[in-house]
Amino acid sequence: MPKIVDADERRREIAEALWRLAMRQGLEAASLSAVAAEAGVSKGRLQHYFASREEMLLFAVGYANERLDERVRRRLAEQTDPRPMAAVRALVLALLPVDEESRTGALVNVAFFIRALATPALSDTFRRGSAELLRKISGYLREARESGEFAAGLDVEQEAKVLLALAGGLSSGMLMGGTSAEEATATLDHHLARLRP
Amino acid sequence: MPKIVDADERRREIAEALWRLAMRQGLEAASLSAVAAEAGVSKGRLQHYFASREEMLLFAVGYANERLDERVRRRLAEQTDPRPMAAVRALVLALLPVDEESRTGALVNVAFFIRALATPALSDTFRRGSAELLRKISGYLREARESGEFAAGLDVEQEAKVLLALAGGLSSGMLMGGTSAEEATATLDHHLARLRP
Repeated sequence: MPKIVDADERRREIAEALWRLAMRQGLEAASLSAVAAEAGVSKGRLQHYFASREEMLLFAVGYANERLDERVRRRLAEQTDPRPMAAVRALVLALLPVDEESRTGALVNVAFFIRALATPALSDTFRRGSAELLRKISGYLREARESGEFAAGLDVEQEAKVLLALAGGLSSGMLMGGTSAEEATATLDHHLARLRP
Repeated sequence: MPKIVDADERRREIAEALWRLAMRQGLEAASLSAVAAEAGVSKGRLQHYFASREEMLLFAVGYANERLDERVRRRLAEQTDPRPMAAVRALVLALLPVDEESRTGALVNVAFFIRALATPALSDTFRRGSAELLRKISGYLREARESGEFAAGLDVEQEAKVLLALAGGLSSGMLMGGTSAEEATATLDHHLARLRP
């Protein structure tokens, strides 16, 4: 029986080859030919999965978002403390480049960022990702308020925005090597402490 | 009398041509030849100012940092409220892409970011820039504490880190178009309010 390769699985492998290239040489270097070579397939084979470079880029960003979602879900599932503020903390920590996988994800994000500014389909994907994270954080903060874990008088929407921006800024500092994982976690915990009553 | 062109002024013009190219086509496209063409000088002329592409990139990042410093100083000088917390606010606002100049600066930052990760001289420049901003913010927060504008019990160093990370995250959101200048300013003001007694 011939080995059946799932088309989506092959697309994901190609997306990961694209990421590796983008991180090593910048996104501009990631042509269809270069990505095919990196993925170990012919250019014709690659074009069987992606008709254009644009389509390949869009898939790669969408897949990076999926991986982030998975990481967030995994972190939340591993969370033994059932309280909503512990979920907020786990969620924000999942956004920080604390290990190889999340570091790769954060680097992919930066590599695509500039290009996304000029590519509506890509920037939509970015904005949807942020809106979804904001929605998730706000949801947990609202639960925290109901369970008495969230200081009275704080604005859920504003606090969610502060937390998401904080995660973004801490990520950049960590990628650049100026901020350690311990330092970023301490800054986050310092901030979370004041959201509690 | 022949027109005397200041060498530093010419270097800055070349750096600005490099930025325009990097923003339009990504940093990878910014070869010595392409930047020379964008700046309207010959490649030989450009090499009179920069012996290598690496040297040109390093100058361009350093110059972007200088421009940011100038913007911060200008914002602080324009600030009519003499209180330290007003200076903190002006400083953080100067880091956000609220107008064409600061947007260009923020885009240059992102364009160089990935490359800086693999280039020690560039990442040093980035890290020095962040450390200097952190030092400035901490300085104002310390003054604010002395003048009674900063809530008792808050940690100056941690609050400075939160503010700098917040500025970074809000900038990314603004560049991507998901966050308006008004919204980012409201989030910052919301956060600053809690630092006051």
